[in-house]
Amino acid sequence: MTTISLIYLKLVALHQSITMENKRTEIKEIGEFGLIDQITKEFKNHHDSTIIGVGDDAAVIDCGDKYLLLSTDMLVENIHFDLSYAPLAHLGYKAISSNVSDIAAMNGIPKQVIVSVGLSNRFSVEAVEQLYEGIRFACQDFKVDLVGGDTTSSPSGLVISVSITGEVEKDKLALRKGADEADILCVTGDLGGAYIGLQVLSREKQVFMSNPNMQPQLENYQYIVQRQLKPVARMDIIHELRDLGVQPKCMIDISDGLASELHHLSRHSGVGFKVYEDKLPLDKQTYDTSVEMNIGPVTTAMNGGEDYELLFTISQKDFEKLEKHRDIHFIGYASKKENGLKLITKGGNEVEIEAQGFQHFS
Amino acid sequence: MTTISLIYLKLVALHQSITMENKRTEIKEIGEFGLIDQITKEFKNHHDSTIIGVGDDAAVIDCGDKYLLLSTDMLVENIHFDLSYAPLAHLGYKAISSNVSDIAAMNGIPKQVIVSVGLSNRFSVEAVEQLYEGIRFACQDFKVDLVGGDTTSSPSGLVISVSITGEVEKDKLALRKGADEADILCVTGDLGGAYIGLQVLSREKQVFMSNPNMQPQLENYQYIVQRQLKPVARMDIIHELRDLGVQPKCMIDISDGLASELHHLSRHSGVGFKVYEDKLPLDKQTYDTSVEMNIGPVTTAMNGGEDYELLFTISQKDFEKLEKHRDIHFIGYASKKENGLKLITKGGNEVEIEAQGFQHFS
Repeated sequence: MTTISLIYLKLVALHQSITMENKRTEIKEIGEFGLIDQITKEFKNHHDSTIIGVGDDAAVIDCGDKYLLLSTDMLVENIHFDLSYAPLAHLGYKAISSNVSDIAAMNGIPKQVIVSVGLSNRFSVEAVEQLYEGIRFACQDFKVDLVGGDTTSSPSGLVISVSITGEVEKDKLALRKGADEADILCVTGDLGGAYIGLQVLSREKQVFMSNPNMQPQLENYQYIVQRQLKPVARMDIIHELRDLGVQPKCMIDISDGLASELHHLSRHSGVGFKVYEDKLPLDKQTYDTSVEMNIGPVTTAMNGGEDYELLFTISQKDFEKLEKHRDIHFIGYASKKENGLKLITKGGNEVEIEAQGFQHFS
Repeated sequence: MTTISLIYLKLVALHQSITMENKRTEIKEIGEFGLIDQITKEFKNHHDSTIIGVGDDAAVIDCGDKYLLLSTDMLVENIHFDLSYAPLAHLGYKAISSNVSDIAAMNGIPKQVIVSVGLSNRFSVEAVEQLYEGIRFACQDFKVDLVGGDTTSSPSGLVISVSITGEVEKDKLALRKGADEADILCVTGDLGGAYIGLQVLSREKQVFMSNPNMQPQLENYQYIVQRQLKPVARMDIIHELRDLGVQPKCMIDISDGLASELHHLSRHSGVGFKVYEDKLPLDKQTYDTSVEMNIGPVTTAMNGGEDYELLFTISQKDFEKLEKHRDIHFIGYASKKENGLKLITKGGNEVEIEAQGFQHFS
């Protein structure tokens, strides 16, 4: 591809859409992870400082005394958010928080962010200021510095791309791999709230659209709506684990749902997991709203994404250090790989855990 | 903004579009740079390691022995590229090259990239593979490692967001500030080719659309079309300056056009510039095509963007080290700030240089 081929260019000018049809595999056929495997398999690294590239929550780069962490997320309007119920300030906050969560998932400390936005002309300066007010609040909360970005026009919706740096002492790095059999499986906070909050917001939007005189009824859903619109990355837990002298053996953040993240930990660490239904932490509002909406609470807890809680394993020897922690829950343990991923129901049955994470491509 | 205000949420659900109208300043009224100033002015840094944030080609982060550089660019379909004439492989190459150019502009060496793409369902796996083939070629050419990214759906066009890291020895960092009066102003390569190449591609697209039996005529425009579709960041120059022992006093890459970049250097360095028309490097094809399209060649050279050449100043003492360089051109010198930015025409007249860089927001 060293020179422009005129023949190719003509082909493009005439038939780019047609040539794409010659052999056409839909992205949904292989899924997001299949696509990433496919497009990155030919890449080779040139630098010894690149310790870990594609495949964990953040890249790991050797930077002398410490590791530099690097991660990114792209948020696209009407895929990741709906501006008819997401205030721009909360959206800005969430864009930073979800990136901070990727650094937390490496047991690292976030440092700098760069933020690019694509804006259609329906956005005024005041609207962009609201977005950046939320970004600024998050930067204060998580002590990260905004150091750059790009601001451009977009023909249709809003696009936000955030990249983040972090750092971690070399002996504190936590990856998706590293779990051993008999490790205790831990999760922070509670599960499924962000997902069920989204269901409520969608429902109220439908009600409002069919009858604009109806006011959205959100009084009874404040906690779960907040979980959806303004999730908080668990940097508090990262600092507490350090204070308590606990090194997670493996770690990931819950962006696509517990089941999906368990599959990642299992695949990278080469272990299976047993998870106990009665140990799954659900907030009462999450539970009640799940029932109200005819969604099984266990399904909500297992497959609801965007909670940005941390999922990790610890050695049994560290158990007593965390035993009385108010917000870390012990939901199971790592087993032999061949035992697979099993949910132990309240009735004592073993059920296969299938990953049903959020599918972008449909 | 610590808790979700239900009143605010209702307001959003009912009136987000209306409330935006209350006080509505259009982005085009203040421009991209005005917008960036407006939204970033309230941000404060938390880390001593953040040496330079928003405002140069890349952020500068103290990383011990060296500086870490960090930059990003977002490319949006139908704003930055048109897939009816930009082959996906070239687009992938350009996305990396333009980011490498930002690292070059700091006198740094690129190291890692993370690439996020938003894809509508008209893109097949094969199309995404073409895009990543170009990304891979660029990663090989510039010796950068692809270490992560995000792949997501997009309701409409293609969005590509690249973030890049680089490194530079602390005494080799080159910023937009740093030029002194009487410094020699240098530019690499030739100017305006990418811009005039774009005009040709647009013209041939119009011809083709009005009569699909017409073949695009690109034989006589190969160089300028290549400049537009597959620009090459000038890492060769960065390595040569090091070999020759020349430290640029200030530096920027030409993404928005010579005139616009001169304004940046002037503002950051606190100097004026005199530029000589007869010293402006134009390729013959750029010159001839400009004339053919009724665009003044000087306008093309001064205001055409996307050449990704380097613009920098050197001390007079370094002149003889570069005097015989095949591809570095001495186009003027830095003067007193109050003298402003002046183009000295072939006839000896002084003309004010006005920035007319690419306006995304219109």
